[in-house]
Amino acid sequence: MTASREEFEARLRQIGADRYHDKHPFHHMLHGGECSPAQVRAWVINRFYYQASIPMKDAAFMSRVDDPALRRAWRSRIEDHDGHGENEGGIERWLRLADAVGLDRDYVASKAGVLPATKFAVDAYVRFVREKPLLEAVAASLTELFAPKIHADRIKGLLANYDFADDRSMSYFKRRRTSNGFSRSRIISSACAGLITRCCGAGNRCRWTTCWIFPTSSSARPVIPARPLTRFWNGRADRATSPQQS
Amino acid sequence: MTASREEFEARLRQIGADRYHDKHPFHHMLHGGECSPAQVRAWVINRFYYQASIPMKDAAFMSRVDDPALRRAWRSRIEDHDGHGENEGGIERWLRLADAVGLDRDYVASKAGVLPATKFAVDAYVRFVREKPLLEAVAASLTELFAPKIHADRIKGLLANYDFADDRSMSYFKRRRTSNGFSRSRIISSACAGLITRCCGAGNRCRWTTCWIFPTSSSARPVIPARPLTRFWNGRADRATSPQQS
Repeated sequence: MTASREEFEARLRQIGADRYHDKHPFHHMLHGGECSPAQVRAWVINRFYYQASIPMKDAAFMSRVDDPALRRAWRSRIEDHDGHGENEGGIERWLRLADAVGLDRDYVASKAGVLPATKFAVDAYVRFVREKPLLEAVAASLTELFAPKIHADRIKGLLANYDFADDRSMSYFKRRRTSNGFSRSRIISSACAGLITRCCGAGNRCRWTTCWIFPTSSSARPVIPARPLTRFWNGRADRATSPQQS
Repeated sequence: MTASREEFEARLRQIGADRYHDKHPFHHMLHGGECSPAQVRAWVINRFYYQASIPMKDAAFMSRVDDPALRRAWRSRIEDHDGHGENEGGIERWLRLADAVGLDRDYVASKAGVLPATKFAVDAYVRFVREKPLLEAVAASLTELFAPKIHADRIKGLLANYDFADDRSMSYFKRRRTSNGFSRSRIISSACAGLITRCCGAGNRCRWTTCWIFPTSSSARPVIPARPLTRFWNGRADRATSPQQS
């Protein structure tokens, strides 16, 4: 049994609608102003590990692609995070957020405060893209289709509820909201048309949707189980806070 | 026993002077106008496999680097080959050379005519950079320091000796001769200063110089042992030649 291309795309979009990590209770807490300063810092410290690993994940993908056109399209993902020309890049913008919430940016960049569970989840994602069949690696990376909405929600929620939120500290999310993720995903989908057509067969559809579920699922994102870890995080985040801002 | 930085650099440069692949008899034949059309085509077909694999090698390296500054410096290598903005990239320029020597560019790009020995050598280089310690992967990639000279020799020799050589078909070598390989290597050397300092110890020096020898050595380059393979290559290259140009 074979799905049409439209049915297949609708099925993928439904997975995002059902399972993308904007559903996680932590994000509702964060955007609703219910996180303590220490919880926000914990999120900034841990989310940085994801942020910093993404260009390595995308380079791992490119290292397996023998089509220069697909590599060129994919390279813009690395430029988004590492910077290019006048664009300082997402990693630098994330460190501005670290400054704003009272963390020492060198401490954040050192990744010394990252939880083992965060490392486990992020490293598993990078390894997935490095080792799985190319089709699955593409699928696992196209969840940026859903990112603009969560970034818009985040900007709105943080600006409304936290003193640290301003144009400078929100620059990461503002850039991601307006970045070319959607059009790029279309280009990449087009470059992968052969792969997508092949995967419309029932067996491959299962594989594609499974690997689509992987990164959209909250369990594979460095979302902090914030409530039970508050005490633990207070300790870690306190240690990392600049004295004048704590 | 520890070498000074200057002694260490001098030792590295000596390896290039002694062993870089411009010493290979094939290159003397090629630059001296002694290659038959079929031998030139065989070189173009096989060297393309190296050309096409280099961005994958460089992406494999970047996928292991957690320093955004080093990744940014390294990314320009991929841009040189895959293209960026107005720069069409080395892969496209190599295919112009394929056109000029009477090959079907789709055949060259398909890699169907590449010899097993070429694949073996190039794949070994990519695997080396993918799997070896990062220090060795850096060292294995810095032989572009020596590339401007062989490209200058090649432009001069091909223009003097072959009808196919003109500005358009030589664009790959012209770009490589003037590309930023040298200054980039200095940036990367600087970014790797810690690695280089560490490897000035005798044990690591051996390891560094060993992996420097690997890609400079002609045995690890897709240089065709042209004389014994002429008959074989005539067959392959004939099959790949556009009828109107054979």
